[in-house]
Amino acid sequence: MKTVLVLGAGRSASVLINYLLSQAAKRQWKVIVGDLEPELARQKLGGSSYGEAIAFNIADIPASARVIAGSDVVVSLLPPHLHVAVARLCLDHGRHLITASYVSPDMRRLHRQAIEKNVLLLNECGLDPGIDHMSAMEVIHRIQQEGGRVTSFESFTGGLIAPDTDPENPWRYKFTWNPRNVVTAGQGTARYLEAGKVRFIPYTQLFRRVTPVHVPGYGHYEGYANRDSLQYKEAYGLNSVHTLLRGTLRSPGFCAAWHVLVQLGVCDDSYTINCEGLSHCDFIELFLPYDARPAEERLAAWLDLPLQGPEMQRLRWSGFFSSEPIGLTQGTPAQITEHILNKRWALRPEDKDMIVMWHRFGVEKNGVQSEIQSSLAVTGTDSVHTAMAKTVGLPLGIATRLLLEGQIKTRGVAIPVQAELYHPILNDLKTHGIAFHETAKPYGQ
Amino acid sequence: MKTVLVLGAGRSASVLINYLLSQAAKRQWKVIVGDLEPELARQKLGGSSYGEAIAFNIADIPASARVIAGSDVVVSLLPPHLHVAVARLCLDHGRHLITASYVSPDMRRLHRQAIEKNVLLLNECGLDPGIDHMSAMEVIHRIQQEGGRVTSFESFTGGLIAPDTDPENPWRYKFTWNPRNVVTAGQGTARYLEAGKVRFIPYTQLFRRVTPVHVPGYGHYEGYANRDSLQYKEAYGLNSVHTLLRGTLRSPGFCAAWHVLVQLGVCDDSYTINCEGLSHCDFIELFLPYDARPAEERLAAWLDLPLQGPEMQRLRWSGFFSSEPIGLTQGTPAQITEHILNKRWALRPEDKDMIVMWHRFGVEKNGVQSEIQSSLAVTGTDSVHTAMAKTVGLPLGIATRLLLEGQIKTRGVAIPVQAELYHPILNDLKTHGIAFHETAKPYGQ
Repeated sequence: MKTVLVLGAGRSASVLINYLLSQAAKRQWKVIVGDLEPELARQKLGGSSYGEAIAFNIADIPASARVIAGSDVVVSLLPPHLHVAVARLCLDHGRHLITASYVSPDMRRLHRQAIEKNVLLLNECGLDPGIDHMSAMEVIHRIQQEGGRVTSFESFTGGLIAPDTDPENPWRYKFTWNPRNVVTAGQGTARYLEAGKVRFIPYTQLFRRVTPVHVPGYGHYEGYANRDSLQYKEAYGLNSVHTLLRGTLRSPGFCAAWHVLVQLGVCDDSYTINCEGLSHCDFIELFLPYDARPAEERLAAWLDLPLQGPEMQRLRWSGFFSSEPIGLTQGTPAQITEHILNKRWALRPEDKDMIVMWHRFGVEKNGVQSEIQSSLAVTGTDSVHTAMAKTVGLPLGIATRLLLEGQIKTRGVAIPVQAELYHPILNDLKTHGIAFHETAKPYGQ
Repeated sequence: MKTVLVLGAGRSASVLINYLLSQAAKRQWKVIVGDLEPELARQKLGGSSYGEAIAFNIADIPASARVIAGSDVVVSLLPPHLHVAVARLCLDHGRHLITASYVSPDMRRLHRQAIEKNVLLLNECGLDPGIDHMSAMEVIHRIQQEGGRVTSFESFTGGLIAPDTDPENPWRYKFTWNPRNVVTAGQGTARYLEAGKVRFIPYTQLFRRVTPVHVPGYGHYEGYANRDSLQYKEAYGLNSVHTLLRGTLRSPGFCAAWHVLVQLGVCDDSYTINCEGLSHCDFIELFLPYDARPAEERLAAWLDLPLQGPEMQRLRWSGFFSSEPIGLTQGTPAQITEHILNKRWALRPEDKDMIVMWHRFGVEKNGVQSEIQSSLAVTGTDSVHTAMAKTVGLPLGIATRLLLEGQIKTRGVAIPVQAELYHPILNDLKTHGIAFHETAKPYGQ
């Protein structure tokens, strides 16, 4: 009997565990779920006779080693900085490991040892990173096999809300992921490739330089650049691209309104403000030149925005001009902004999230240029089986199945950019309703 | 015979040394100038029979101790981080120390020991900090002695160029101070007090939020806020102010044009660019959205600026759109920008600099509000006897004279905010043509 060990039973584990239990019933596997709180693991297993909940603490090395030694594949949903400790124990006992996190430098250093031990340490096998790699590589390899050359690649992914969720929310957004990362997103300078040259976008311009995106059947979106797009040149083998841009997708108008918050300085996380007794509006006041007009009018005048325009409308809806007390004694501007936004952007039980992913490939073949667009939209079933939990959990689960079935020969530290990984995973995802829609057309039409 | 020891014979030492030598002739002092390069010290002394040039290296503690023990007052022009080592030796041997640098936390800790040893460690006795403290405190104390209350204080200082220097330079600016600090100025968030509340200005808005300043006889200027204005509340004893703003003075239009560079991201000092073979214009290109128009047009369109307007005119004059090679292989954006600016902004031998300082005090007396403005403008004599060298060197020299004459009773770590320091120094400065011009008027007129 094969045994799968899932480490971490938090929010994003439910879809993964359900998938593994459904496979376990067909194939007589055992699914052990370990968490600091075994009760949480027990709840997630829902009484399945194929499941076992255990207490797991990676700081207890001997106990962790025992349970890892007793498994065939380990899936780690632990915080990313703990993956390397798990990987070391997997190497000690010759066990495979799968994660949805970026390959850290420490993880990368285990590559040779993993090859020697005939072990796969598969990372970046969730949504983003994960499905983005797989779906892009499937198209890139196909273009290359058909004798074409990829000349440009743009790719955006966003965790949004479903069209029927919170219909009056003008941002079309809620916190479906780490709120702190959302508020401080983009700080620093973004690098990307355009017209053959490395180009830079400072934080002050990031939310003004958006790429318009249309997803057939889902409508219009806009994307802003992520920190470093250049690394994908090597990762995807895109040696002849002149344009390479990866970013984050938002609903139209989100970025222009967020740009106002960036200009105001309220996403700064580098110093602390005493905000005891301050209202939301008092907080905004701190960043505005002073005069007798209300903050709302002054902000609009200062940044040359129509008072009833879409940016001001979004800020008003978020309560930034309200006299409601903030409810914190102190915090960085970013923490206070997150706290105010969370009053409207926290997910409610009835809310459904939505994942949208979009790629655009420029292609040259026999001297003719064309363009391929490929897109994905996944809506959450409810606030537990979210689109985020599905698109992170299912690729992990499918990769686990393939490994246990002996279908994957790759060893060492890897990400799913090879056909033996992405083909069967993407095919299986389709049976779960996670399918890309592709359009091809001549260049520039 | 009294002995003064001057440490450091760099550019800013000449006026100080000339002042001390002229006093030495009258009072039979000896002026020892120590530098890593004694030849530099010798040049500065110009063969005076009252002077002696020596090699001085603070890293050689025994030799440094000997020369300090043999002096009555030490003036340190060394890099600021070396002052504390000098101060410790001064304490060991009961000698006074004067510097033009900000009091560091390490310096502050020597206060009690200095009191015990009957030693004065006088800091912030140059221009800014220095003359700013003295001239402001003279007015503040006078207002208070006349029964008034200071309700607001704004103060700006700038190192600019004289009106007849480089008349076609539209910025009315050259590098008269550390160029690196000029290019990275204002990064972070400025704090100040306005209408009774602490307020914040993020870097992205700093050069848009200028205070207009008029200096009688010298014309119009504009000031942007320095990092932290609040510290002057305690330093100046301004307990009842509702507005407190300290900043940097520039000629009109400077800030709006500099704001363009900030928006572009070319003052960022946090990452390195490979710029081998790039022209000035290629560098600007890296920060612009790409299309077929020339960079100049694209920048103007992107930031909504008239192509022939004052901002674009300044950038054009600085050569940012020229095809001239940068001449560096790599650098941070800030380093590359400094390098390009320096081609036009480096001081030439015939150039004269100009220091402008301006204070505005809001006053309440017997329920009546009024306003006092006080301003100073000093022009350099030539490129050696610059306004900067005069306004830094003379206060240091005068304080040295007063100390040697036994006119200063203050001991411990101090800055020149007491009348026994600022009165005689400001009076002596007047005889050197460094005099404030004051205007008083009812509030708001």
